[in-house]
Amino acid sequence: MQPSSQYKTVGIFSRPRRAALAEIVPQLLAWLTARGVTPIFDAETAGCLNDSDIGKTRHQIVQEADLILVLGGDGTMLAASREAAPRGIPILPINLGGLGFLTSFTLDQLYPALEEALAGRTAIEERVLLLAERTHNGNVLAQQRVLNDAVVHKGTLARMIELELYIDGGFVCRYRADGLIVATPTGSTAYSMSAGGPIVHPAVESILITPICPHTLSDRPVVVPDASHIELKLLESSDSVFLTLDGQIGVPMQLGDTVRITRAAERLKLLHPPTITYFEILRNKLKWGEA
Amino acid sequence: MQPSSQYKTVGIFSRPRRAALAEIVPQLLAWLTARGVTPIFDAETAGCLNDSDIGKTRHQIVQEADLILVLGGDGTMLAASREAAPRGIPILPINLGGLGFLTSFTLDQLYPALEEALAGRTAIEERVLLLAERTHNGNVLAQQRVLNDAVVHKGTLARMIELELYIDGGFVCRYRADGLIVATPTGSTAYSMSAGGPIVHPAVESILITPICPHTLSDRPVVVPDASHIELKLLESSDSVFLTLDGQIGVPMQLGDTVRITRAAERLKLLHPPTITYFEILRNKLKWGEA
Amino acid sequence: MQPSSQYKTVGIFSRPRRAALAEIVPQLLAWLTARGVTPIFDAETAGCLNDSDIGKTRHQIVQEADLILVLGGDGTMLAASREAAPRGIPILPINLGGLGFLTSFTLDQLYPALEEALAGRTAIEERVLLLAERTHNGNVLAQQRVLNDAVVHKGTLARMIELELYIDGGFVCRYRADGLIVATPTGSTAYSMSAGGPIVHPAVESILITPICPHTLSDRPVVVPDASHIELKLLESSDSVFLTLDGQIGVPMQLGDTVRITRAAERLKLLHPPTITYFEILRNKLKWGEA
Amino acid sequence: MQPSSQYKTVGIFSRPRRAALAEIVPQLLAWLTARGVTPIFDAETAGCLNDSDIGKTRHQIVQEADLILVLGGDGTMLAASREAAPRGIPILPINLGGLGFLTSFTLDQLYPALEEALAGRTAIEERVLLLAERTHNGNVLAQQRVLNDAVVHKGTLARMIELELYIDGGFVCRYRADGLIVATPTGSTAYSMSAGGPIVHPAVESILITPICPHTLSDRPVVVPDASHIELKLLESSDSVFLTLDGQIGVPMQLGDTVRITRAAERLKLLHPPTITYFEILRNKLKWGEA
Repeated sequence: MQPSSQYKTVGIFSRPRRAALAEIVPQLLAWLTARGVTPIFDAETAGCLNDSDIGKTRHQIVQEADLILVLGGDGTMLAASREAAPRGIPILPINLGGLGFLTSFTLDQLYPALEEALAGRTAIEERVLLLAERTHNGNVLAQQRVLNDAVVHKGTLARMIELELYIDGGFVCRYRADGLIVATPTGSTAYSMSAGGPIVHPAVESILITPICPHTLSDRPVVVPDASHIELKLLESSDSVFLTLDGQIGVPMQLGDTVRITRAAERLKLLHPPTITYFEILRNKLKWGEA
Repeated sequence: MQPSSQYKTVGIFSRPRRAALAEIVPQLLAWLTARGVTPIFDAETAGCLNDSDIGKTRHQIVQEADLILVLGGDGTMLAASREAAPRGIPILPINLGGLGFLTSFTLDQLYPALEEALAGRTAIEERVLLLAERTHNGNVLAQQRVLNDAVVHKGTLARMIELELYIDGGFVCRYRADGLIVATPTGSTAYSMSAGGPIVHPAVESILITPICPHTLSDRPVVVPDASHIELKLLESSDSVFLTLDGQIGVPMQLGDTVRITRAAERLKLLHPPTITYFEILRNKLKWGEA
Repeated sequence: MQPSSQYKTVGIFSRPRRAALAEIVPQLLAWLTARGVTPIFDAETAGCLNDSDIGKTRHQIVQEADLILVLGGDGTMLAASREAAPRGIPILPINLGGLGFLTSFTLDQLYPALEEALAGRTAIEERVLLLAERTHNGNVLAQQRVLNDAVVHKGTLARMIELELYIDGGFVCRYRADGLIVATPTGSTAYSMSAGGPIVHPAVESILITPICPHTLSDRPVVVPDASHIELKLLESSDSVFLTLDGQIGVPMQLGDTVRITRAAERLKLLHPPTITYFEILRNKLKWGEA
Repeated sequence: MQPSSQYKTVGIFSRPRRAALAEIVPQLLAWLTARGVTPIFDAETAGCLNDSDIGKTRHQIVQEADLILVLGGDGTMLAASREAAPRGIPILPINLGGLGFLTSFTLDQLYPALEEALAGRTAIEERVLLLAERTHNGNVLAQQRVLNDAVVHKGTLARMIELELYIDGGFVCRYRADGLIVATPTGSTAYSMSAGGPIVHPAVESILITPICPHTLSDRPVVVPDASHIELKLLESSDSVFLTLDGQIGVPMQLGDTVRITRAAERLKLLHPPTITYFEILRNKLKWGEA
């Protein structure tokens, strides 16, 4: 049977060690195959079939898939977005737990959502990613896209970091703090919010810079245009320092390193349920409007 | 002598009761006249000449002037911007006190700044204004532009207000609070900052919504696109409620009123010194980078 | 029948306009009378009997009663505490709505709680009150006890207040703010918390000073010993200013006035249910520990 | 010459690598000796004499000294207090840099302050210390006194910690956060303040519990009586966790560990200048009262 859909190959990324998946995955594979769609999947998903070996790497999957189905929570979603976004592959996120900020389809919406997606009827929302680069003397030593945030922070036993923030080449200020969060609007409801940052709607073309436990009490979160070229220079006075990307990848830094952060060229394409708005998710997650 | 400048008539708005002006104003009038520019001025400025009667209303001045020169602080600047912006007349702000967020030229820059402005060499920065409307059953009862903020807040002896926030027709949340600040990026460093809001760079196309002393601890400042259509509906359970515009104009509200806030069609044109950046002003005002 | 209890006369204070009371009050009066206890009650309670005239003033009631039964919420409780505390009369608070910070017995505990109280088996907790005095040139113009807080704040259309804080005669700092909250530990979970103040356990012998929307971003809540003698001096630069006591009584202030705040000589005696702790009430009210 | 003072032996603790000390220390030793006082000193001080070997351990010094003179900043002071407090030896702190929260004598007050101290005329202030214990299954594995704070926090690459707070055996709440600070009033102006905690006057008999970047937005700093018995239980869901004492000593934790914190039996005795108050130091450090 020929698939009528633009999505001929669906890649599946699963959250590891989720009992519920043992039941869901076989049915899902059958459902997709019956509709002429080829499912391919990662080792985590294969683990649910008691045969991890047949899983592919996520990197391989995004070479072949037209759509990524995420079965997990916001964590799995963050990992998927770093793979899928650079290749322009849209993601359909299904939340296995409660409602997530990113994974707004719930498990009971799995087949209806897939049905709509294959029929090309689901709205696709775009989310900005940032490109974070660790550089030294102008050389790029590492780079990575993030959907939520790039965080420069002190190591375990360090007392604080000291760094200078430059925007578009101009000096902004010197921070003495536990760290500094540079976040997308999407990331504004993640770590930045715990550190006291505002909620930034995804359609505001901006980057949010939130200090973590700053020594100077007038250091406030700053929202700048997302076309800004942000540089964080580590000062000699800093103790051990790390760069953490989307809360998942940790990179040790050297004194004298500079972290450069800019908007990534590619955006994440995210399938979004028609029945729930951004503010409804916020209200639900933040318990707004209750007593 | 024919003025070579695009600015043939300069309107002067002064801060009331400023001793320094008695010396400055006569010199300034002579300086402008000598360059073929016609100065016109408000009653506050005329007061420095010991003849308030020869002052015009600010409303008259913006009918005739090509440029408004503000001699004052951020307060005089706010009043001037509400008059000048709708007619597209640029403002050259001279600060009589310390550095202001809005009045970034200092007094010793008065003549050099005017020289540059008349020669057409000064950069003009645009700032978004909001249009705030008090409505009842769909009828607009009052409207006003603001450069900083529109604030809905409780009256003196009221305990709190209760209102609902709608964005683009969709319900966002219900607030129980002392009030709610709806601010431009320009206004983010004014009242909103005292209430815990972030700093929003003027180039971020956004509106900032900051609750004042909210009862629900998870109510956080929210940054939304400046194309948003914002509505605040007062609930019956509110005590006496007022709408305050740029901290200068107070409007009593009736229960059942709705405040509508949108981006104004016109922007403020603001002459800006080439020698100081937005972040330098912030650093100075917030004492960043000091020990 | 002779009452076996130390509580021979029970005064009842009710929250106005609560439909539920029409059923509760007649039963309650009968229940008390049957146990040889004389009930006396305020006009609000009498209103439930369709005869407000038979109610006494709350001031009269505390001349005669040995125990005050509050049927209401935290608001009714605050009013009752100002009457009962100076005479050392304990209060048994019954919450008509959800759980209150102060009214920790629920309606279904009414008769068991009374039974225990009359039998002298209920723990009595003491809460500190503050004595707030408005003075001018050393003369006391007004004074009032508060259980939660005394708040000095700007009037409706004022921009800010400017005041100086002195503790035990020593200058602490100058505030430019919407207002300043001086709270007991009991009041730390009321208005002060909305303004960003910490939670202070009732057993910490302290007074909490929390600024409301301070202009200086390093102005933080301060906790001082409850033996402190606190003075707030209004500066000339202030606009219209009010003193609000427990959120219920508003007193206009004159420039040059000083507000003096000290610990009141008497404490509130509060009957407390054995089955719920301070932190359980906090957890419940603040939704701690939820997802 | 016989010393007339109660202080016959003065121990000197210095901040390492401070150039200014090379000049100060020899003079100081001569000054003390000339007054019949025996100076003994640590390796850091000896380093200024180009002979580190003649320094004693700080632990040895507190066996012999009657007074400890600290030449340094708040960091040297914290280390000194942990040694001196348990033996009841008072500390005279001289700040080598700017004004410190703890080191309130400045360098130009060195000899006048010593003169007054030796003459027994200096006021001695007492500060509470906490005793922090790491326990497992009821066994104490490590213990340490702190003058500022005991902090339980996540390791470098961990995402968060999850722990439960118990006070006097009763459950308070579960935290998901970067960490939790348990501070003395003295420590309220240190790390806790960067994390959003209030200022607590040293005379308030209390312990301050401040969460670091809590996920639950209603998690607020809590002030409890200093007689409280505080327990922090690490949950299985935590990633790597550390206990840091006064920002100086780091202890790795095991899941299942409990941190117990109580008021230490001994207090720090701190010589305090008569010319500056607690609030003056605060004003100076926090730049209060400036424009």
